[in-house]
Amino acid sequence: METVLNPTVVSAARSYGGWQRVYEHRSAVLDCSMRFGLYEPPELGKPRWVLYWLSGLTCTEQNFITKSGFQRWAAELGAIVVAPDTSPRGDRVADDPDRWDLGQGAGFYVNATEEPWARHYRMYDYVLQDLPSAIASILPGVGELPTAIAGHSMGGLGALVLGLRNPGRYRSISAFSPIVNPSQVPWGQGAFGHYLGSKYDAWRAYDPTALIQDYGPRTGRDPQGEPPILIDQGTADGFLGQQLQPEVFRDACQAVGYPVTLRLQPDYDHSYYFVATFLGDHFAHHAAHCTGDRAI
Amino acid sequence: METVLNPTVVSAARSYGGWQRVYEHRSAVLDCSMRFGLYEPPELGKPRWVLYWLSGLTCTEQNFITKSGFQRWAAELGAIVVAPDTSPRGDRVADDPDRWDLGQGAGFYVNATEEPWARHYRMYDYVLQDLPSAIASILPGVGELPTAIAGHSMGGLGALVLGLRNPGRYRSISAFSPIVNPSQVPWGQGAFGHYLGSKYDAWRAYDPTALIQDYGPRTGRDPQGEPPILIDQGTADGFLGQQLQPEVFRDACQAVGYPVTLRLQPDYDHSYYFVATFLGDHFAHHAAHCTGDRAI
Repeated sequence: METVLNPTVVSAARSYGGWQRVYEHRSAVLDCSMRFGLYEPPELGKPRWVLYWLSGLTCTEQNFITKSGFQRWAAELGAIVVAPDTSPRGDRVADDPDRWDLGQGAGFYVNATEEPWARHYRMYDYVLQDLPSAIASILPGVGELPTAIAGHSMGGLGALVLGLRNPGRYRSISAFSPIVNPSQVPWGQGAFGHYLGSKYDAWRAYDPTALIQDYGPRTGRDPQGEPPILIDQGTADGFLGQQLQPEVFRDACQAVGYPVTLRLQPDYDHSYYFVATFLGDHFAHHAAHCTGDRAI
Repeated sequence: METVLNPTVVSAARSYGGWQRVYEHRSAVLDCSMRFGLYEPPELGKPRWVLYWLSGLTCTEQNFITKSGFQRWAAELGAIVVAPDTSPRGDRVADDPDRWDLGQGAGFYVNATEEPWARHYRMYDYVLQDLPSAIASILPGVGELPTAIAGHSMGGLGALVLGLRNPGRYRSISAFSPIVNPSQVPWGQGAFGHYLGSKYDAWRAYDPTALIQDYGPRTGRDPQGEPPILIDQGTADGFLGQQLQPEVFRDACQAVGYPVTLRLQPDYDHSYYFVATFLGDHFAHHAAHCTGDRAI
């Protein structure tokens, strides 16, 4: 199966001594053209590692690369950073134009099974398969590098799900303001019902709290050695109480002994102002687990 | 004359321990409502100073506050940062909807004398008068603090002109990719002809290179003790050859002994990726002259 056709450069800008580029490529998994951001840090002799960043509702590949200031940390710590779009795109791709939390811009990093979504909405497989293939076609050997995953809000959900379901794939996981228990909150229920149908078992595969509950004594799975999770959450985040509830996830982790750090940041909101403020700590978290470099 | 009516908060987000707010107020000088960004750094015992940042063509008050990552430097160095819009705004304000380099979003920081622009297009006076009054109404005493001015592209032009024409007002000046000789390049000619008419003497008052030429032996003005200027320019900037030509300004400064540093940054373009990369050096430049704090 031909999964990647010719990633082409859409834009390129030098940034902190490296290069921030945006590419377009054909994704077979999603059956559409997709854009992603790719940052290459300068050659400073640092050990290299890779961070996948998953963005939140309504975002494209642009939000993280223009608003977070991550390039500073990536340049300093030798990180190649991959920032995909948040859903399949295009006129032929199903959408719900009346909703910003379903359809284009709201892929939720699941493989949809229900119509009209099943054909294109396969962001879980895209991030695991087509996207790494595209990156490897640009930077040969990148698949051998230590890799971490992080995200914001809906993208924090994606980072947790991809990180927990693919042992050995990611060395560390982090999230800002993640949706941790989508089966139980309006954003998740409103999307999962459309993408995955009404079977709760299908939802559990994309619910970080449910995935954590499968560790521990009940199943015999051992969380020691699993990728450690860092979560930052602003206390002035308007979505905190109804949609996010990170304590639910932390409590589930603590119940089974999964390594998690949840930090509640006073007065911070859901925006990239919040993400930018604490992003250096997340890069340090990932660099420590990907390269052992704690000098930050 | 009542110059400021009730600046009201449009948005507020915590950022790097301080607060990034956007305000709206009525400007008498511009005869319209205006928005500006105001960042207050955290209370860290640092000496306080103020930086005015002027943005470039097509920008609003949002570009710098969302894309530059400046809050990191402002928090670290104790800077209050003021980021105004780039022109008067509103349905009653003259515009040329077919051009992005004239009218709304393109005020060029001049006081227009020609119709239909003269009534509202007075950004020079706005940045000198109404904007500081609005800031003082929010943060009493801020007018007593050491103050610096900086900007990007058209905003670099504004920073140079305001800094050079108001001795004692600003301790230091800096610019990214500034328009340094507007009388001689298409952007400046296309705007100044509309805003200022055809008299070249009127143009000279808003032309940094012409202002520099008034220093030195010919006029007896002494550039020593004037605010030192730092300029960064990317060599891959598509506007470099036709619109910017910073060497013309540097040569004029050197001819009269005005303190200027021009740095040509290889492969960087005109974007905020470029600005963000070197912004820390500009904050260090301003902090050194505003507070004597060189520890960066």
